[in-house]
Amino acid sequence: MGDSKTNEIQKLSQDELKSILKNTRRTLSAQQQLIKEKHLPVIVLVEGWSASGKGTLISYLIRDLDPRFFQVIPVKSPTKEEKRKPFLCRHMTNIPEAGKFVFFDSGWMEETVFDVVDGHLSEKALAHRIHDVNIFERQLVDNGYLVLKIFVDVSKEDQEARIAKLSDSEDTSWRVNKRDLDQLKHRKKYEKAFSHFIEATNSVKAPWHVIDGSKKELVELQVCHLLVDGIDAAIQRNTLPADIPENPFKLVPMPELKDVPLDKAMTRDEYEKQLQIAQKKLKKLHNRIYNKKIPVIIAYEGWDAAGKGGNIKRLTSALDARGFVVNPIAAPDVHEKNRHFLWRFWTRLPKTGHISIFDRTWYGRVMVERLEGFCSENDWKRAYNEINEFEKNLSDWGAVIVKFWIQIDKDTQLARFHEREENPDKRWKITDEDWRNREKWDQYEDAVNEMLQKTSTTFAPWHIIESNDKLYARIQAMNIVIDALEQKIKEIG
Amino acid sequence: MGDSKTNEIQKLSQDELKSILKNTRRTLSAQQQLIKEKHLPVIVLVEGWSASGKGTLISYLIRDLDPRFFQVIPVKSPTKEEKRKPFLCRHMTNIPEAGKFVFFDSGWMEETVFDVVDGHLSEKALAHRIHDVNIFERQLVDNGYLVLKIFVDVSKEDQEARIAKLSDSEDTSWRVNKRDLDQLKHRKKYEKAFSHFIEATNSVKAPWHVIDGSKKELVELQVCHLLVDGIDAAIQRNTLPADIPENPFKLVPMPELKDVPLDKAMTRDEYEKQLQIAQKKLKKLHNRIYNKKIPVIIAYEGWDAAGKGGNIKRLTSALDARGFVVNPIAAPDVHEKNRHFLWRFWTRLPKTGHISIFDRTWYGRVMVERLEGFCSENDWKRAYNEINEFEKNLSDWGAVIVKFWIQIDKDTQLARFHEREENPDKRWKITDEDWRNREKWDQYEDAVNEMLQKTSTTFAPWHIIESNDKLYARIQAMNIVIDALEQKIKEIG
Repeated sequence: MGDSKTNEIQKLSQDELKSILKNTRRTLSAQQQLIKEKHLPVIVLVEGWSASGKGTLISYLIRDLDPRFFQVIPVKSPTKEEKRKPFLCRHMTNIPEAGKFVFFDSGWMEETVFDVVDGHLSEKALAHRIHDVNIFERQLVDNGYLVLKIFVDVSKEDQEARIAKLSDSEDTSWRVNKRDLDQLKHRKKYEKAFSHFIEATNSVKAPWHVIDGSKKELVELQVCHLLVDGIDAAIQRNTLPADIPENPFKLVPMPELKDVPLDKAMTRDEYEKQLQIAQKKLKKLHNRIYNKKIPVIIAYEGWDAAGKGGNIKRLTSALDARGFVVNPIAAPDVHEKNRHFLWRFWTRLPKTGHISIFDRTWYGRVMVERLEGFCSENDWKRAYNEINEFEKNLSDWGAVIVKFWIQIDKDTQLARFHEREENPDKRWKITDEDWRNREKWDQYEDAVNEMLQKTSTTFAPWHIIESNDKLYARIQAMNIVIDALEQKIKEIG
Repeated sequence: MGDSKTNEIQKLSQDELKSILKNTRRTLSAQQQLIKEKHLPVIVLVEGWSASGKGTLISYLIRDLDPRFFQVIPVKSPTKEEKRKPFLCRHMTNIPEAGKFVFFDSGWMEETVFDVVDGHLSEKALAHRIHDVNIFERQLVDNGYLVLKIFVDVSKEDQEARIAKLSDSEDTSWRVNKRDLDQLKHRKKYEKAFSHFIEATNSVKAPWHVIDGSKKELVELQVCHLLVDGIDAAIQRNTLPADIPENPFKLVPMPELKDVPLDKAMTRDEYEKQLQIAQKKLKKLHNRIYNKKIPVIIAYEGWDAAGKGGNIKRLTSALDARGFVVNPIAAPDVHEKNRHFLWRFWTRLPKTGHISIFDRTWYGRVMVERLEGFCSENDWKRAYNEINEFEKNLSDWGAVIVKFWIQIDKDTQLARFHEREENPDKRWKITDEDWRNREKWDQYEDAVNEMLQKTSTTFAPWHIIESNDKLYARIQAMNIVIDALEQKIKEIG
């Protein structure tokens, strides 16, 4: 993976090297301003052998950067809490905002390689993880990120000498850990695992750069060059729309909204009876999923005034308050808008055994953000697939995913708007924005239809809840959740 | 702690009870709107014996609340990561925004009581913790929070019966843990520890409410009443300024800014020499503090263009990138402004062994927020003591705290502003706001002087860095950090 630049560099004298290095650093420092202006988020993944100088390299890279624009994330073995989330969750959590750098001091590669060497990952599980990593990196790049992946390579002899040197000094000997010694002892095994991971995750959008780590200055210069060139290239690339991959997942056919019947209703008596039965079942199931460590994600979308809030309330009233969270999703905060659009959902995932309910969801991307022009056409068109991939990841992790579209007709909405306006206790629930959205009903209906068609997968199908009668809708939703939980429990035995 | 209301309630028939309960719930539900309007943040701490029905109580309380306005925080034993932060850090992290509820399913009390019973807390350490809790709660109330503390009390017989019932059912038996059985076995020991904690943290501003948990409906009704009354009282109280406690800490005398000499300078040669020496020392010390798990907090304040950024950069260039974070502090985000003003600093504390550098700090409260009217007079006047308490807490935890005021004179600032305007690479660093702040130089100088006088404590003294000559200033700051780290390492041996 060496290039001609590297070959040239190898031949330089020490003085020439120093002078080039100085210039490159100056360019990099100036580029900070550029990435800020162009809202480019930069991820630098620094992987490599232990004692290969990863930490020193990062210290070097950041020396001239403004501390307001970068962060260094030292990645350790995942904590118990982190293990209760999907593998990529903690890495996703740490991605930078637009206009900033994040340097990962080893990241999703090292963890995986160690798992392989330790025999904690079957071949199938490894293939799975590599698949997820490739999707993760591609999504980042498509969403405007520069993902620069460095592997610092040192020979066995060098590594041995460096570890010996660390061990010799009182101030650094504690830094040498079991893993370092293990790498020396089983070098071949690690080599194989590193190589496999690098090959399997080497992509056009996020290629690996394997750097010869034998000479510090050369590493620094090469990585500086990679950064400078990478930033320029990413800024160029981001002026063009990303390609939109075809959906690779099996889809469940969905009806058009206009064909959804809305005539079902339930008497108050029948409702009370059914509610009691459903709540009792849910309570029991909540215990079971906690016990079996099943994570559950329940997503609510629907028209304004469709009854999402009341529906959620009836569902949660059956649940143990310690085992669920309701995430109300409004317009993103600045620090959310400045990241991958799924970031604020990745950071709100449930732990295993817990339930996360989303009152509005990541589907905002293909509804409000699409219609109000908050993202580009390319962005929302790509999002169907990105969302399917996100949900597939969650499903593979073991999550139950239930997605509701709470459906009402236009007349019912109007009646409810008026009712809210007339009731002093509910008046705050209705805003000018609701009226504005209502004017765009037809556009929204088209967008919702497209969304339902394109994102109802076998692992995360949509359920349309008929909510002209709220009582009927509540029971319908609860029963769908009950079915999904029962099925999952049966599945895993 | 029973009151006349409770006595009346005890005598009610089941039907009367149900009807009152229904009305109280309706009031509570309506109050959501009120707390939203009045920006009241509400903390409900639900503590009590195990199997006393805490979870059921919380489920009951939230049933009619809008999920967008509350969160339930189940507090478990602290994780390894959480143990590397101050005791109150994880609780502070979870406090609600203005206008929202947080229900803590047991909180800072249970953890402490368990530590006492398990023999993990000396009498002195317990006294310390209680002291911190009292300050924490008082600060919350003074900053507009309602802190409602509930202890659900059940007799030994009741507890025994409930645990037996849980154990009997396949769906709930896994819920009974060692701790529950331990509470039964050593009931007296727990009783003593609970009582002591309740007495020691029972304050006018955040009193305890011990509720007889023998009858579910009665618990619910009483707590509903407490909430309804508490919210009304808090809204009343928040219209009045809180009292400003006198500073209880020993202060280090500080000069007035006008008397600080600014004539020191350093040649480039001398600087390069000193820099190398200082960086070498720092590098070594960074290893030591990591090894000895000492947390370090370095706070930078100073005039615009005083050279904070460059000063920080020289300091960090000596540090291992994996062991420090620079926190640039700008105007607070909405979710930060909606919480206790120290919240965004509590959530940015270093782990043990790590360094957090703050580029601007919590002292914004008594400078920009004071002068621009972003908080009330009572708020900033109270803040001196609140900040001292915050820093005392960190110091008691074992942190090294170094606070810098980077000082320049008015002419030097003007020269640097012009220099920035003329240099295309630096132009972005200077904004209209900088010029506006400059116009208020005298007001800021008064505020800074007051701040230095009132918050230079023995455990977190201020250091004024003479920065008319940036080179001199950098070496001065680094040497102060070196001294502070060396002293701490000597102290703990």
